[in-house]
Amino acid sequence: MSVYEKLRELKISLPEATPPVGAFVPVSRTGNLAFVSGHIAKKNGKPLVGRLGSEFTTEQGKEAARGIAIDLLGTLHAALGDLNKVRRIVKIMVLVNSAGTFTEQHLVANGASELFLEVFGEIGRAARSAIGVAQLPFGSCVELEMIAEVV
Amino acid sequence: MSVYEKLRELKISLPEATPPVGAFVPVSRTGNLAFVSGHIAKKNGKPLVGRLGSEFTTEQGKEAARGIAIDLLGTLHAALGDLNKVRRIVKIMVLVNSAGTFTEQHLVANGASELFLEVFGEIGRAARSAIGVAQLPFGSCVELEMIAEVV
Amino acid sequence: MSVYEKLRELKISLPEATPPVGAFVPVSRTGNLAFVSGHIAKKNGKPLVGRLGSEFTTEQGKEAARGIAIDLLGTLHAALGDLNKVRRIVKIMVLVNSAGTFTEQHLVANGASELFLEVFGEIGRAARSAIGVAQLPFGSCVELEMIAEVV
Repeated sequence: MSVYEKLRELKISLPEATPPVGAFVPVSRTGNLAFVSGHIAKKNGKPLVGRLGSEFTTEQGKEAARGIAIDLLGTLHAALGDLNKVRRIVKIMVLVNSAGTFTEQHLVANGASELFLEVFGEIGRAARSAIGVAQLPFGSCVELEMIAEVV
Repeated sequence: MSVYEKLRELKISLPEATPPVGAFVPVSRTGNLAFVSGHIAKKNGKPLVGRLGSEFTTEQGKEAARGIAIDLLGTLHAALGDLNKVRRIVKIMVLVNSAGTFTEQHLVANGASELFLEVFGEIGRAARSAIGVAQLPFGSCVELEMIAEVV
Repeated sequence: MSVYEKLRELKISLPEATPPVGAFVPVSRTGNLAFVSGHIAKKNGKPLVGRLGSEFTTEQGKEAARGIAIDLLGTLHAALGDLNKVRRIVKIMVLVNSAGTFTEQHLVANGASELFLEVFGEIGRAARSAIGVAQLPFGSCVELEMIAEVV
């Protein structure tokens, strides 16, 4: 099944990729690797503002991470022209805007990991780090970056 | 001398690699690169919980970073079958759970850097970043991720 | 125009690369990739100490990020012998020492992104993540790491 058939089955619509504001690129290719810039959590096009452990629950954070994973696929689709060129999700880093007492960054990260597994199957299982950070651009609750192997 | 002879000389036993809990992999290979997932500091199999600059001293954090470096080698051994396949430790990122006043993340990171140098010699010298973070999964004091070049 | 002519035109002098203090390297090469260790913001050779959102304004942080980007070029020049070997700035990570209320990490990061664009032109546009961290080595206000594609 192609990635796009799988996305339809999962009722996932890819967002339009928005050009970055600044002197950087959303996706940078070198050899067979595509480095995708950090994307922040958004809702209806606006940053989803708050911290895990105060404004957001773990479950809400996980949902936000899943949403960013979908946005990353939209960005990668725009860059590659075809998501079937993805050979493997190599690495993801999940940055969680965390109150000092919040220690479930790994559960938040599962929102992204599970989405990639659903969409890509076994090649969607990436190496990963989950980290609690002090703040994120625009006050967003989660940021996600990714490295993919592509043809 | 093989990596395993060196480990014996240093009296280091590799831990059993534990499968990740979630939709990710401990090690992801692409070409000659192996990306190793972030591992948290543990003691007797349980997260080593606390912050540098409050619950832990720099020296304790350095020891924790050394312990994670050994755990990463256990994970890499399980993934590659043979640590002698490592051609270079390319990059490490050391994430230190830091009180707001703690500014010795680089000294904590030395615990990992020195272990890799002892075990691998000059090819163990990696590029590195040391960072103070707001929290880590399970409240662990240190997290370490790595990229290695392998054959 | 060579990178060095461009640097002269921009009136940028590269600093002497300082050897790392510890068991790591400033630049690690694997295949066509050069991983550059995290560098902290300095002024007159000393760490530029403070947080964004308390001791430093966004504009000062942006200037600090630009300064580190220049330091990274000095390090890369020392490692490669010739900055014209750079084929692309692949990825940068901008770590901003952030008060809990500071949410303009992306604007701080622009200081580095814009410098790379000025010096390298279009191949200076990298993928990027901007993150607010709890602390940094020596209390520095910004840390920057980089991956470059080189020949």
